[in-house]
Amino acid sequence: MLVLGIDPGTATTGFGLIEAVNSRIELVRYGTVTTEANAAMSDRLCQICDQINEIITIYKPDVAAIEQIYYFKNAKTVITVAQSRGVIMMTAAKAGLEIAEYTPLQVKQSVVGYGKADKKQVQIMVQSILHMDTLPKPDDAADALAIAICHVHSCRMAKIYKGGLK
Amino acid sequence: MLVLGIDPGTATTGFGLIEAVNSRIELVRYGTVTTEANAAMSDRLCQICDQINEIITIYKPDVAAIEQIYYFKNAKTVITVAQSRGVIMMTAAKAGLEIAEYTPLQVKQSVVGYGKADKKQVQIMVQSILHMDTLPKPDDAADALAIAICHVHSCRMAKIYKGGLK
Repeated sequence: MLVLGIDPGTATTGFGLIEAVNSRIELVRYGTVTTEANAAMSDRLCQICDQINEIITIYKPDVAAIEQIYYFKNAKTVITVAQSRGVIMMTAAKAGLEIAEYTPLQVKQSVVGYGKADKKQVQIMVQSILHMDTLPKPDDAADALAIAICHVHSCRMAKIYKGGLK
Repeated sequence: MLVLGIDPGTATTGFGLIEAVNSRIELVRYGTVTTEANAAMSDRLCQICDQINEIITIYKPDVAAIEQIYYFKNAKTVITVAQSRGVIMMTAAKAGLEIAEYTPLQVKQSVVGYGKADKKQVQIMVQSILHMDTLPKPDDAADALAIAICHVHSCRMAKIYKGGLK
């Protein structure tokens, strides 16, 4: 199963591709998708769509795991992030990907084992799980990898749970 | 100039098509685009995209005028509306439409002449401007028509202003 984790944003959207093979998780690629700060919002949303489509076309992931937005101190930020999130969800769904959504709490719980873990703790665990030489950077890409790992863990838990009920 | 006014939502998106011919404004069509309540959010966003695309393909509007989201009491609602708004802006931009954004205050000011006008006052003015036999219904479609009218008024004001500077 190839999982595309996505941390949506308007200026910067983080993405992380990981492959789950039996009990192993392998890092495929991670990075960010950026848009022109001076461009109109509608054009920036088109740029996000095009770049996410490009990643999907090249790597053909099975699932897109996206962070749920639940609370922002800044009302303006929540609106622009949600707009990008809508575009990304639709783009991935139109490309035939399964869509999975996780809250930041679920991601931290799943990756670090502690729902109130800070950014650094999450990055250290992502580095360890994916056998990376350095901490994943930038933050948006690290978050996207964490969301992807959360999805793999969640699927495994579901499998174990199903097995136990047999 | 054919203007497509849009009032974004997840369950119901209002739309209103009006044609500005010289000093007249003619009603072309109005209504709502709806999505299945039980469908996954990603599928609902795809449904919105497909239906907005259908309207654009049939009527070939020049501009999409969309209401700006500025404040919501309910944080969950603002997120889902913003997701739909992002999808609609991107869909219209990809189809080559110019995108115009207006705040609810601008729409009321432009249609009624009073920024704190209530829903009913806006609908009465929309009915009058478009020579409709009855009040435009439902509310989402009426709001979309008001946004479209606001764009036409705004373009006319810009033209007058430019003319005065010659």
